[in-house]
Amino acid sequence: MAMENASSPSLSPPTLFTYLMTIASPSMIKHAISDAAIKIKNIALDDPRRVIHSLKVALAITLVSMVYYLQPIYNGLGDAGMWAIITVVMVFEYTVGATLSKGLNRGFATLLAGALGVGAEAFGSLFGPTIKPIVLGFLVFFLVGAATFSRFIPSIKKKYDYGVLIFILTFSLVAVSGYRVDKIIQLAHKRLSTIVVGGLTCIIISICIFPVWAGENLHKNMVKNLEKLASFLEGFGNEYYRVSDGDKSFLTSYKSVLDSKATEESLANFAWWEIGHGKFRYRHPWKQYLKIGVYTRQCAYHIEALSGYLYAKDEIPSEFQKTIQEACMKMSSETGKALKELANAMKLMVHPLSSSVHLENCKKAVDDLNTTYKVSMVEDQWNILDNISVIAATSILVD
Amino acid sequence: MAMENASSPSLSPPTLFTYLMTIASPSMIKHAISDAAIKIKNIALDDPRRVIHSLKVALAITLVSMVYYLQPIYNGLGDAGMWAIITVVMVFEYTVGATLSKGLNRGFATLLAGALGVGAEAFGSLFGPTIKPIVLGFLVFFLVGAATFSRFIPSIKKKYDYGVLIFILTFSLVAVSGYRVDKIIQLAHKRLSTIVVGGLTCIIISICIFPVWAGENLHKNMVKNLEKLASFLEGFGNEYYRVSDGDKSFLTSYKSVLDSKATEESLANFAWWEIGHGKFRYRHPWKQYLKIGVYTRQCAYHIEALSGYLYAKDEIPSEFQKTIQEACMKMSSETGKALKELANAMKLMVHPLSSSVHLENCKKAVDDLNTTYKVSMVEDQWNILDNISVIAATSILVD
Repeated sequence: MAMENASSPSLSPPTLFTYLMTIASPSMIKHAISDAAIKIKNIALDDPRRVIHSLKVALAITLVSMVYYLQPIYNGLGDAGMWAIITVVMVFEYTVGATLSKGLNRGFATLLAGALGVGAEAFGSLFGPTIKPIVLGFLVFFLVGAATFSRFIPSIKKKYDYGVLIFILTFSLVAVSGYRVDKIIQLAHKRLSTIVVGGLTCIIISICIFPVWAGENLHKNMVKNLEKLASFLEGFGNEYYRVSDGDKSFLTSYKSVLDSKATEESLANFAWWEIGHGKFRYRHPWKQYLKIGVYTRQCAYHIEALSGYLYAKDEIPSEFQKTIQEACMKMSSETGKALKELANAMKLMVHPLSSSVHLENCKKAVDDLNTTYKVSMVEDQWNILDNISVIAATSILVD
Repeated sequence: MAMENASSPSLSPPTLFTYLMTIASPSMIKHAISDAAIKIKNIALDDPRRVIHSLKVALAITLVSMVYYLQPIYNGLGDAGMWAIITVVMVFEYTVGATLSKGLNRGFATLLAGALGVGAEAFGSLFGPTIKPIVLGFLVFFLVGAATFSRFIPSIKKKYDYGVLIFILTFSLVAVSGYRVDKIIQLAHKRLSTIVVGGLTCIIISICIFPVWAGENLHKNMVKNLEKLASFLEGFGNEYYRVSDGDKSFLTSYKSVLDSKATEESLANFAWWEIGHGKFRYRHPWKQYLKIGVYTRQCAYHIEALSGYLYAKDEIPSEFQKTIQEACMKMSSETGKALKELANAMKLMVHPLSSSVHLENCKKAVDDLNTTYKVSMVEDQWNILDNISVIAATSILVD
């Protein structure tokens, strides 16, 4: 409820009281609750893995906190148990790759920063108690500045961003902890071991209980995107010439492909961290998927341009358009079929053989069209030619 | 060096020894260092605000840690100082909006979760020491599961994702801390005050020293994107007919517009949190920018399709193409000019008046073309018509 208030401040009610009365009336509250319940149910049904993920996180945190709560030696939750919980909360992500990436980053960054922090502390102690804070202050300022700047370097940002953050955190904490070196080492040992326990809990639960692999998601996404484009192209000819009626969802579903870049890149990034799973070996060439993604999007851009013609043309087709109807429809559907073959081949990870047949058919249709008409309908033809290059390139990449 | 090793494991050297020799030879090391230095320098020169940001973060952390280090009452960095440093590291972001968003999220989530945690602890104590862990375990499991699931709800994910994370963390920590309620409240008071100190330090430094406003960035990005499209359209006619030589960067610079969605959305999100700055009031209609962004990208998709013709056509223009040359070039350049006017008007935040003149010119050129040739060059004409709708829509939005 508070959330809803915050997100709709532009309502500007006549008075605050009537506004409160309106949103607080029993029927409104009932309505809002049932609305929210439906929304939540849809999110859960849309992808049941989300519910499973929530339960996995809850399990991991309950497990870790109970272990530390019940361990009699700590006598209540000490410093160590706290770090195990913090680690689980911060590291547990939706996909296995993301969890591994954060867990490993956290572990190694803590180790490195801890060692450097102890060094800084020892170095500062050489100068006596009055100058020590100044020396430490300079060291912290310099290292934190450099580490923060390194987060702008693309290659570091891509894979080690979280590690650098934890490095800054641990280094500052250790360097200015004010403990003597031997006590720090004792503390560090305990803290590092709890972080490892927390991290391992996450990684094991994430891999063993209904794992969500970033790589598998990436693979499925690519196939789905290709299929969306294919069904648009298959249906486009009919739609343009108003031949068929029926489900028109294929006309808009391709739009999600246009903005798929960010998702694909982060998935490919996380997939890089994952161990082999299912049909994918360790070090599967995930970067190739990004290349296919570029071609897929290029194809989607052309389709977007092509779809503009659909909405513009609502008069009866001219005589000329009727004459080229057959060839155009064939081109469009054959390209669609070729793309569908390609998506299928990718799904099963085999070489796409039959799609070349469709491409041959399509090229023949283009030639037919070219010999009959020289200039007209350049756009359709062009799109097809473009698709051919896209398909040729993806065929090579899929191998 | 270690980073580079990690990122190029695909080199597959003949033997490990020769590989190590190669990368460890003095000239190679020198080369790698100078390479890295140049790269880093470029990143810094590309946007000097990055260096300033790094220094700001370093300043904030040094300040906070020194305050807690030097305070005699704590006698070394206690629990409280640690939380101040953690807060600064986690909250300080590049833009003011992101820092505010994280800081406020962290503060309120800690408060709420702390209160709930104390309640859970008190509730658990009612059952006696043996059943208490079980009750607490169930409470943690249930609340953590629900909170994790809520992160999948789009409206929460957009604005309160970090808050939910901190809620999970604080609730688990407090609920299973094993302290008595009065001691928790004492601890919570101390911890909350340090988090507030850490958060305020971030926010003040972020706003007062060379602030980077997400809203201003968003505004500038939109203008830059429009300008990129405009210079492509202005130059496209000349390029297609091979009239001019010279700088061709405008032919590819529009490509960055294609994938601008994620950046724009996160900037608009952060801008929502920002107080008024410069020409922008508090609650500036940032959502309108997203709408302009959608039109801009649509225009970019069409341009992408259009640019395909540039690379395909390398023979001498046909007689027909020559005849329509003038009209086509005029259309393209007039649309470009109109877009440039629009970008300019947006930059100065005034109503675009002169762009309508260019649009009239452009429409006239389209009409000229239509009367002479009925079907041909549909693609060019179409793009222009599409641009008109884009421009009309943006004109309304800019107001």
